Amino acid sequence: MWNKASPAFLGCECDFDASRIVLFGAPFDSTASYRPGARFGSRAIRGESYGIETYSPRLDADLSDCAVFDAGDPELCIGDSERALSEIGRLSGEILDAGKLPVMLGGEHLVTLAAVREAAKRYPELCILHFDAHTDLREDYLGARLSHATVLRRCWELTGDGRIFQFGIRSGLREEFQWARQHTVLHPFDLEGLGQAVGSLKGKPVYLTVDLDVLDPSVFPGTGTPEPDGVSFRQLAEALQTVVSGSRSCGYRIVGCDMVELAPALDASGVSTIVACKLLRELLLSLSAAL
Amino acid sequence: MWNKASPAFLGCECDFDASRIVLFGAPFDSTASYRPGARFGSRAIRGESYGIETYSPRLDADLSDCAVFDAGDPELCIGDSERALSEIGRLSGEILDAGKLPVMLGGEHLVTLAAVREAAKRYPELCILHFDAHTDLREDYLGARLSHATVLRRCWELTGDGRIFQFGIRSGLREEFQWARQHTVLHPFDLEGLGQAVGSLKGKPVYLTVDLDVLDPSVFPGTGTPEPDGVSFRQLAEALQTVVSGSRSCGYRIVGCDMVELAPALDASGVSTIVACKLLRELLLSLSAAL
Amino acid sequence: MWNKASPAFLGCECDFDASRIVLFGAPFDSTASYRPGARFGSRAIRGESYGIETYSPRLDADLSDCAVFDAGDPELCIGDSERALSEIGRLSGEILDAGKLPVMLGGEHLVTLAAVREAAKRYPELCILHFDAHTDLREDYLGARLSHATVLRRCWELTGDGRIFQFGIRSGLREEFQWARQHTVLHPFDLEGLGQAVGSLKGKPVYLTVDLDVLDPSVFPGTGTPEPDGVSFRQLAEALQTVVSGSRSCGYRIVGCDMVELAPALDASGVSTIVACKLLRELLLSLSAAL
Amino acid sequence: MWNKASPAFLGCECDFDASRIVLFGAPFDSTASYRPGARFGSRAIRGESYGIETYSPRLDADLSDCAVFDAGDPELCIGDSERALSEIGRLSGEILDAGKLPVMLGGEHLVTLAAVREAAKRYPELCILHFDAHTDLREDYLGARLSHATVLRRCWELTGDGRIFQFGIRSGLREEFQWARQHTVLHPFDLEGLGQAVGSLKGKPVYLTVDLDVLDPSVFPGTGTPEPDGVSFRQLAEALQTVVSGSRSCGYRIVGCDMVELAPALDASGVSTIVACKLLRELLLSLSAAL
Amino acid sequence: MWNKASPAFLGCECDFDASRIVLFGAPFDSTASYRPGARFGSRAIRGESYGIETYSPRLDADLSDCAVFDAGDPELCIGDSERALSEIGRLSGEILDAGKLPVMLGGEHLVTLAAVREAAKRYPELCILHFDAHTDLREDYLGARLSHATVLRRCWELTGDGRIFQFGIRSGLREEFQWARQHTVLHPFDLEGLGQAVGSLKGKPVYLTVDLDVLDPSVFPGTGTPEPDGVSFRQLAEALQTVVSGSRSCGYRIVGCDMVELAPALDASGVSTIVACKLLRELLLSLSAAL
Amino acid sequence: MWNKASPAFLGCECDFDASRIVLFGAPFDSTASYRPGARFGSRAIRGESYGIETYSPRLDADLSDCAVFDAGDPELCIGDSERALSEIGRLSGEILDAGKLPVMLGGEHLVTLAAVREAAKRYPELCILHFDAHTDLREDYLGARLSHATVLRRCWELTGDGRIFQFGIRSGLREEFQWARQHTVLHPFDLEGLGQAVGSLKGKPVYLTVDLDVLDPSVFPGTGTPEPDGVSFRQLAEALQTVVSGSRSCGYRIVGCDMVELAPALDASGVSTIVACKLLRELLLSLSAAL
Repeated sequence: MWNKASPAFLGCECDFDASRIVLFGAPFDSTASYRPGARFGSRAIRGESYGIETYSPRLDADLSDCAVFDAGDPELCIGDSERALSEIGRLSGEILDAGKLPVMLGGEHLVTLAAVREAAKRYPELCILHFDAHTDLREDYLGARLSHATVLRRCWELTGDGRIFQFGIRSGLREEFQWARQHTVLHPFDLEGLGQAVGSLKGKPVYLTVDLDVLDPSVFPGTGTPEPDGVSFRQLAEALQTVVSGSRSCGYRIVGCDMVELAPALDASGVSTIVACKLLRELLLSLSAAL
Repeated sequence: MWNKASPAFLGCECDFDASRIVLFGAPFDSTASYRPGARFGSRAIRGESYGIETYSPRLDADLSDCAVFDAGDPELCIGDSERALSEIGRLSGEILDAGKLPVMLGGEHLVTLAAVREAAKRYPELCILHFDAHTDLREDYLGARLSHATVLRRCWELTGDGRIFQFGIRSGLREEFQWARQHTVLHPFDLEGLGQAVGSLKGKPVYLTVDLDVLDPSVFPGTGTPEPDGVSFRQLAEALQTVVSGSRSCGYRIVGCDMVELAPALDASGVSTIVACKLLRELLLSLSAAL
Repeated sequence: MWNKASPAFLGCECDFDASRIVLFGAPFDSTASYRPGARFGSRAIRGESYGIETYSPRLDADLSDCAVFDAGDPELCIGDSERALSEIGRLSGEILDAGKLPVMLGGEHLVTLAAVREAAKRYPELCILHFDAHTDLREDYLGARLSHATVLRRCWELTGDGRIFQFGIRSGLREEFQWARQHTVLHPFDLEGLGQAVGSLKGKPVYLTVDLDVLDPSVFPGTGTPEPDGVSFRQLAEALQTVVSGSRSCGYRIVGCDMVELAPALDASGVSTIVACKLLRELLLSLSAAL
Repeated sequence: MWNKASPAFLGCECDFDASRIVLFGAPFDSTASYRPGARFGSRAIRGESYGIETYSPRLDADLSDCAVFDAGDPELCIGDSERALSEIGRLSGEILDAGKLPVMLGGEHLVTLAAVREAAKRYPELCILHFDAHTDLREDYLGARLSHATVLRRCWELTGDGRIFQFGIRSGLREEFQWARQHTVLHPFDLEGLGQAVGSLKGKPVYLTVDLDVLDPSVFPGTGTPEPDGVSFRQLAEALQTVVSGSRSCGYRIVGCDMVELAPALDASGVSTIVACKLLRELLLSLSAAL
Repeated sequence: MWNKASPAFLGCECDFDASRIVLFGAPFDSTASYRPGARFGSRAIRGESYGIETYSPRLDADLSDCAVFDAGDPELCIGDSERALSEIGRLSGEILDAGKLPVMLGGEHLVTLAAVREAAKRYPELCILHFDAHTDLREDYLGARLSHATVLRRCWELTGDGRIFQFGIRSGLREEFQWARQHTVLHPFDLEGLGQAVGSLKGKPVYLTVDLDVLDPSVFPGTGTPEPDGVSFRQLAEALQTVVSGSRSCGYRIVGCDMVELAPALDASGVSTIVACKLLRELLLSLSAAL
Repeated sequence: MWNKASPAFLGCECDFDASRIVLFGAPFDSTASYRPGARFGSRAIRGESYGIETYSPRLDADLSDCAVFDAGDPELCIGDSERALSEIGRLSGEILDAGKLPVMLGGEHLVTLAAVREAAKRYPELCILHFDAHTDLREDYLGARLSHATVLRRCWELTGDGRIFQFGIRSGLREEFQWARQHTVLHPFDLEGLGQAVGSLKGKPVYLTVDLDVLDPSVFPGTGTPEPDGVSFRQLAEALQTVVSGSRSCGYRIVGCDMVELAPALDASGVSTIVACKLLRELLLSLSAAL
């Protein structure tokens, strides 16, 4: 018989053993405080990815030439954050232990905590590059310590001061901005300072987390907490390229990545999903070239 | 009492002390396994209620003549089920202790557990009338014991066998239907048998829980888990009238009510919200007449 | 050159002089108190009418065989009710004076007043058959005497007591229902009593006004003020057939018709528009056969 | 590693060799004359099928117990009807030659022609049971002989007179209804006469084709050419059950099935897709029991 | 004052007496000539405002520290422009007479006339700063003098020549642009010239009116008459900051403000509403600092 | 009687004989491989054009002063590409033979082939200016030689090497980019190099084809295959102005134009349609001035 239509992301037809990068989804959004729907993000990215090409004229590279395995989505326990994080962590850990690079698709931003926990266990000096509209540095949210609004604070408990570099941040409590001054390296409003940050990472293990709401809502309306005054597609694409190519030129190692907070149903035009697909393609191509 | 956070439901302008019925929302949907959005149900019902009239020609009664206080929505901890249930329970308990009838608007069906816990504490012989498309009788859902798919099973742990009467049920696991045969009184597919059930409740305290997905999806598409082959608006409206008027004619007492699982964004036409508003108006009018 | 795609309703290609029925739109909705958009009703009905066929298997008749002229939509002054009504009235009057039957497409229900004024001038004994979910009998609406909520009251000022027959009515103020008992012939909830009403019209000039929200919202969600518990498509189609065929069997004359309150943008599926198209086709075919 | 999320329809986890029924999609809609989008039907049915259960309380049967293989969707040449039909035919033929029952998901109705061609080649006495709102009996559509509006006429060229039984038909040209009187067995408006039709099929090979627009648009708005005044969910579900169980009681063999014309994007509520999922589940369960 | 009818805008919890700024809505859109829906603007801005934070990192200021009272929305007579303007004017006047700054949320642009009338009565030298895509300078619109398309012309009748400064204008009749050359100070296409305009206002009372369609439709699609080629979020936010801070540096007094023409239903993603919320937060913070 | 509401594009009220430019639609999208709906493009552009003004302040010119005839849409055979192209070609040829300039509104991009065939027959040295996100240079698409993905390759077969100038291209197969290096003049990513291209066209007949997906999806989400990282409205508007004014300053003749790939239903906000309307107005005004 003929083959089933694959659920894999565009061109990611490699099997697990031969792969160097493993893509997987984390379809969880139970703590989304404003508008839910990010649970459908990874599924939409895969399902709509055939709307773009495998080839990138910017990078002159093709996903069909890359060794990426798409592991699909685990079934997560909606409504129980710790149980869901535990499952995500198990998968992240397996990928790391196999010597491969995990690239996770959200889901809401809380899922990053599971991946960072695993990375930090294995790489105690872990640094985090964080692109986002929001600080995500609350101590708790209505009493809950596990929340999309607290995730970077939880990560900081693992990395300590000065290890989290935040870009594009334009929303948060006054207390979060004040707290950031002492504990993270926060670049507000845009992506300036990225070159300098990247230059300071020599020898460090680096985790890259991209909350897609760092983009301006005109570019990316399909997200739970859109925040006006964001960066453009080109700015973000170039920043991700800077981060990845910096691993070679500046001498650090990327040990994990994620891209979170696409809520596809909030953008009926489908454009937000295609934006995520193209950014993911460019990221995978860059990572493949840099590994 | 807590502060209002939104405009009151149509015509419910009574204050707390003078009221006999207290309406409140439970804006929680973190365990919704398929499509979230029920958290916005109570807010939509209030906000759109001015699209209908306070007067019911069917009942020849007017909400402006009834003693209903609308307490608004508490701020619930999205993502932490037990914490949210605890807050809902606190409010339900206060209303019960003030000698008033709580009428709760979901949110997802799990919120019913909080209200039933409080009722069962005060009325150990509590019976439950349950209108739904789904059994909601799972022991757990992907490991979680608190879920919209387990809520009636959790309620059964409080009431024991033969105290839960289920109507309109047309979806569930084979195991749930089998389990129901021994532990609940399940009427599948439609509302037949309601008269008999109501007739058997003499002297009992009764909790009424209405999952609006008991309605056919043509009537009520705006819900997280629509299930074809449901009941009509008129059938449900008459059934609720039967339940309420039965409290007088058959001699039982209704000690709590809820109406859950409106997810307004899933029905862009707004019709599902208006259906909920009209059912709520008819229910409040019937309850006012029967108290 | 080739012909332009016609803006006329499906199959209504007759010119004015040869026509016996003249269709025209009244794209006005400035007084819509809940959700506007009925101004786009007539345009949507024309634009989508090619989604159905000209032939009716129920009636075994074809619109291409009928003498209907579609005069299009006048440009109405949005925001100024009296000015808009005046323009609609001018057009209705011209059609009447040419000895043709005007069939008007709303727009909101207030536009009916303009057409009824012209009919009542020429036919002082005018009776009105009114299908609607709402009484539309308020004396004023927030001070305004011209409103979709007062339109039948204004019509009554022209016809006097006992000349307005209302069907399907299930929403209104208590005062409106009380007022109706003395001044109109109101059949609440459904279409029962239509046969009797029609039988009493012998020798009378009759105006037929159809507010499409008489239909159940499951059938017709695309309307400004949907009201659950309405009639089915088949019930309304048969009722209109009863009214038209009654003109022959019972001996009265239909001197004007309208179909109002389609707000197409409120039903993204387009089904409401198609429902209106099919009802209009059936009505035009019946009228053509009865003239 | 863990398993990929399967793209298969709910519970259809059997492999090809062990299966008795093979499900496959035909994602084609190039001839849709009014509103396209049926190409996404099969994909939506699979993707959303986890919104219902594998167990049917009506049939007391579970899809997990059935031997159904879901072969996925072939990649079809959008824009070239004969090329697409050829590919669909190749797949249908392979399934038939393996002694299994093909169940095809559209796509638009034209795809039925490819499956019927293969069935008619192998079963020259083929009869067709056809549920639809439309006759689909045109000789050509704007000159094209291959079209969703001509598909049953093309099928008739293969079966000859008296072999096509049509139910629920309520739209078409006058000429189509006239033509049907001589060449097919047409039951207009509803499903009456099905018992008699089924009783006449003894010993015949039968192909079952279900255009979902036979349903009323209130139940199934998500289709390219909605036609008001259709049948209810229960009526169609029971009719399909009658057809399948009749194969045993009346002694005929079902050699192919399809379900077409879901255009999911036209119903943003997702209800139409769930209706198709539930009908498909019931059909597969019935077929499994009857084989 | 009148009673609140809805929840307050984010952080505006001050009571009337203690407030220095009073926010109120003007939910009117009866003259919208193209696409209605702005009547829901003020309600959406309040309801969705909890999607952003009270703190502005750009301004390092927090709404919770400001003395803003949100008076809610009056009930306006939809369909009767003069009656609606009269009610809006009454409220504006009360706020002005209490020595507070009125900030009005539309509604369509015509509502500005009511507020300007009150301001001009009290401040005869009133100047107007007008941000918009459209000239709004017609003498009448289809005969109506009160219209969103004539509102600045009506304001000019109150202020006289050279007192209205228009920015971002890129649409209008040729006659309007010609008329503007003699009577207003029109800066077409963008916001250039604002610094100079502001510098010329020393000693003047100033009314600020912001039609949000001055923004590019990619940023703000949710408006009745979108006009491509508009300004960016940052450009408008900075311009409003320039206007407000100029009141101190250049020595003028802002005596009234409004923000109009959000039609939330036209942007299903909700982004337009959030854009309006953030602009309003920044404006209120700037005004609080400058008072 | 009064005039019918015209279906013509805004202000194009000229008759055929007096016109110098003839606008017509090509409502075809059968080969759209990703998301269909462009068939509704021309109809939406006409229907919504009254949302903008006839006057352009950028060009200080008014469509009412131009000699443009809008011929409407022919009825095309959906599903049969060659038959549809043949009809489009017949119309294009008639316009060319009448000495007028054809301006065609898509529909999908394949329709360009029909117009280019006619132009190339009459102007053998034809050059093509092509604005697009995609190369459109495939030899075939799943075996079909006629496809929106092959249309420029088919055009090249008519013009030969070096005659097609491509701008804004940012998506395609690696092979297409390689092929373009030898056969077309491809400017990737943006519109740079346009001035030089235009300067090289002296004496040539020029066909201008604008695939609107060259715009960034934030500006123009309503298209079948959105591709992030595109050009802005202003950039494209200025580029079209450069092309048209270059015909005078550089001495070439524009012999045909088109604007394709608006799929209006994919952008519920309506902004994409308005963007197309404004670009078309500016293009028609420029062409009128340059003829």
